[in-house]
Amino acid sequence: MKKELHFGRAEFDQRLASVKKEMAKRGIDILLLSEPANQNYLTGFDAYSFYTPQVVMVVLERDEPIWIGRLVDRVSAVMTTYLADDNIRAYPDRYVASAELSAYDFMGDIVKEVGGERAKIGVEMGSLYYSARAHADLVKALPLAEIVDADLLVNWIRMVMSPAEVSIMRQAGRITDAMMQRAIDTVEAGVRECDVAAAIYSQQMSGTPEFGGTYSCSPHFLCIGERAIAPHAPWTDAPLAASTVVNLELFGVRHRYQVNLARSISVGKPAPAYQKLSGIVVEALDVALENVRPGRTCEEVHAVFSQTLARHGYEKETRLGYPIGIGFPPSLQLRTASLRKGDKTVLQPGMCFHMMSGLWYEDTGITITQSFAVTESGHESLTSIPRKLFVK
Amino acid sequence: MKKELHFGRAEFDQRLASVKKEMAKRGIDILLLSEPANQNYLTGFDAYSFYTPQVVMVVLERDEPIWIGRLVDRVSAVMTTYLADDNIRAYPDRYVASAELSAYDFMGDIVKEVGGERAKIGVEMGSLYYSARAHADLVKALPLAEIVDADLLVNWIRMVMSPAEVSIMRQAGRITDAMMQRAIDTVEAGVRECDVAAAIYSQQMSGTPEFGGTYSCSPHFLCIGERAIAPHAPWTDAPLAASTVVNLELFGVRHRYQVNLARSISVGKPAPAYQKLSGIVVEALDVALENVRPGRTCEEVHAVFSQTLARHGYEKETRLGYPIGIGFPPSLQLRTASLRKGDKTVLQPGMCFHMMSGLWYEDTGITITQSFAVTESGHESLTSIPRKLFVK
Repeated sequence: MKKELHFGRAEFDQRLASVKKEMAKRGIDILLLSEPANQNYLTGFDAYSFYTPQVVMVVLERDEPIWIGRLVDRVSAVMTTYLADDNIRAYPDRYVASAELSAYDFMGDIVKEVGGERAKIGVEMGSLYYSARAHADLVKALPLAEIVDADLLVNWIRMVMSPAEVSIMRQAGRITDAMMQRAIDTVEAGVRECDVAAAIYSQQMSGTPEFGGTYSCSPHFLCIGERAIAPHAPWTDAPLAASTVVNLELFGVRHRYQVNLARSISVGKPAPAYQKLSGIVVEALDVALENVRPGRTCEEVHAVFSQTLARHGYEKETRLGYPIGIGFPPSLQLRTASLRKGDKTVLQPGMCFHMMSGLWYEDTGITITQSFAVTESGHESLTSIPRKLFVK
Repeated sequence: MKKELHFGRAEFDQRLASVKKEMAKRGIDILLLSEPANQNYLTGFDAYSFYTPQVVMVVLERDEPIWIGRLVDRVSAVMTTYLADDNIRAYPDRYVASAELSAYDFMGDIVKEVGGERAKIGVEMGSLYYSARAHADLVKALPLAEIVDADLLVNWIRMVMSPAEVSIMRQAGRITDAMMQRAIDTVEAGVRECDVAAAIYSQQMSGTPEFGGTYSCSPHFLCIGERAIAPHAPWTDAPLAASTVVNLELFGVRHRYQVNLARSISVGKPAPAYQKLSGIVVEALDVALENVRPGRTCEEVHAVFSQTLARHGYEKETRLGYPIGIGFPPSLQLRTASLRKGDKTVLQPGMCFHMMSGLWYEDTGITITQSFAVTESGHESLTSIPRKLFVK
């Protein structure tokens, strides 16, 4: 069976070594990773199977991690990870959606098999794929173990990307650009909102002539007219009005690496106040981007943005941005740093962020944003669509 | 602001009454619902906001539920629910992805405000949107309350759909049919897998000329060639071979109601053994569908299918099907009944299932399936694409 790996073994080894180093520092013997992005980062695993119980287990004293998941997904582990067959373990289908059986008993038995019955075991308490039930079942399956919270241990490590990862981010950015251009081309009065969505999704999957795209961590956001102030609203099948605002947030993905991009499009001539607001957002965004460089903190970048807004009499309630990278549904969120007041995370080359400079007020919303990688000397934009209000 | 509700108030009232009846039976004073589909069912709420903490709180002694979520999503609650403004409560953005603050403290305060400090509170322990951390934080915020597992309480109730819901399922089925037809039209040797995906997604969103579609609970599954045996594998950007198998599982959605459908397409003349296997699957599927009617149990329907397979020397490891209905990413799973051995759930009119008759063996996979509603006298197919192996 052909292996489908996007990184060399040396890169996977280095990732694992970084994680083990942190485990050793915290005295953790075994790490049970529930977050699909962390599983992908350490093993390459890529299938849409994580909504049933699935973990990647890192044992400090073993060479390779162990993937444990559902039987029908075993073949995906064989195809997409570098793991030896012995380190791919699957539970039978009777464990799926069962009121009697818990897959965490099956996992607990494997923990015991590798000598972990009394180990210090790290789990990801804040992962959406580690439910309250999962935790209760695991604690019951391993009564002698010491179970500790190791949430975000891997997230902080994978937040700093390798050159090979950043080059995949660039590919994702090219797809995102193509999607936004297609959206700008499609938007016009009379076109149904759902048909704008159709054009965007079609481009997302086709990607570019050289490489294709894949599904994103969340649906795209098309917030139109009255819903321009609702950033996560679904689109409708109503036709676009002759004069309206279309706020788009789109996500291009390559090999599970996602690059985000938002733009506002005015159908018809924009109101002068809205036009003026777009200029203020772009000014603040440009200044904040110029201030990105290694050594700066997240809150310093945020401060530059919010001071620029404040000079024009505006404020932004939501955080200014978040890291991007590997992601799976329902959300790209790394849950580590945020570009906001109080966040003292120091920027390093290889970190990637979406500067989410969207503004939502009582009566209007505008979204002109930029994803970027931190470089040795500043930043590199991951998309090239101009930062401006588009008018159709 | 215009309300966007797809059901009348009487229907919401009836749903709430059913839930309260079950709460009373179990002595539960307050129910905290984390599962987005349950939130939608009881209030109409529809936005992609549930990846940050969000609950719908049902208080036995209050008329309306209370929605609690993130400030930027408040406007979506105003637009998509019938709730009075007082019953829409939002926490500020500083609670999002914070290491210091927990939104469950904010929620706990509202529980106290409605007199629930010492109440018996039901939570959804198995929901993917109720993490181990969420549970720990809630328990800490409400030390005097008795917190009990009420997982699936609402799921079992909403599994039996009203006529208004089934009619939306029919619309979703029409979108699913259009998507599968578009896929069949697009598949041919030389077309990139990602371009087949593009055509499917485009049709999903465009829906039909009368009504549009929206995002599904999971990506579509295009399992092609060597990956025909990996049901949840991602597609690639490789061109289709001159002779290959394309297994598609597609999901059409209308107003968050989803209808699933899988078909196998043979590019080039199928191998005689594969053709024969397709006949066996269709025979077993047809016989199982004929046996669907109110009063039958899930395991009885399963038995008919597996006996038919067994007569031809085949076995199916995975369960034969699961309920469908309202869903949000990452998965439609209701986690209630399954069409499998041992499941004694009695079929009732208004229940909808995806009979997932896919077979995956060491060297081949075939997926020809049917979604249906249980009617007064039997079943109604929710899609109309013929049950057969397509050849291109």
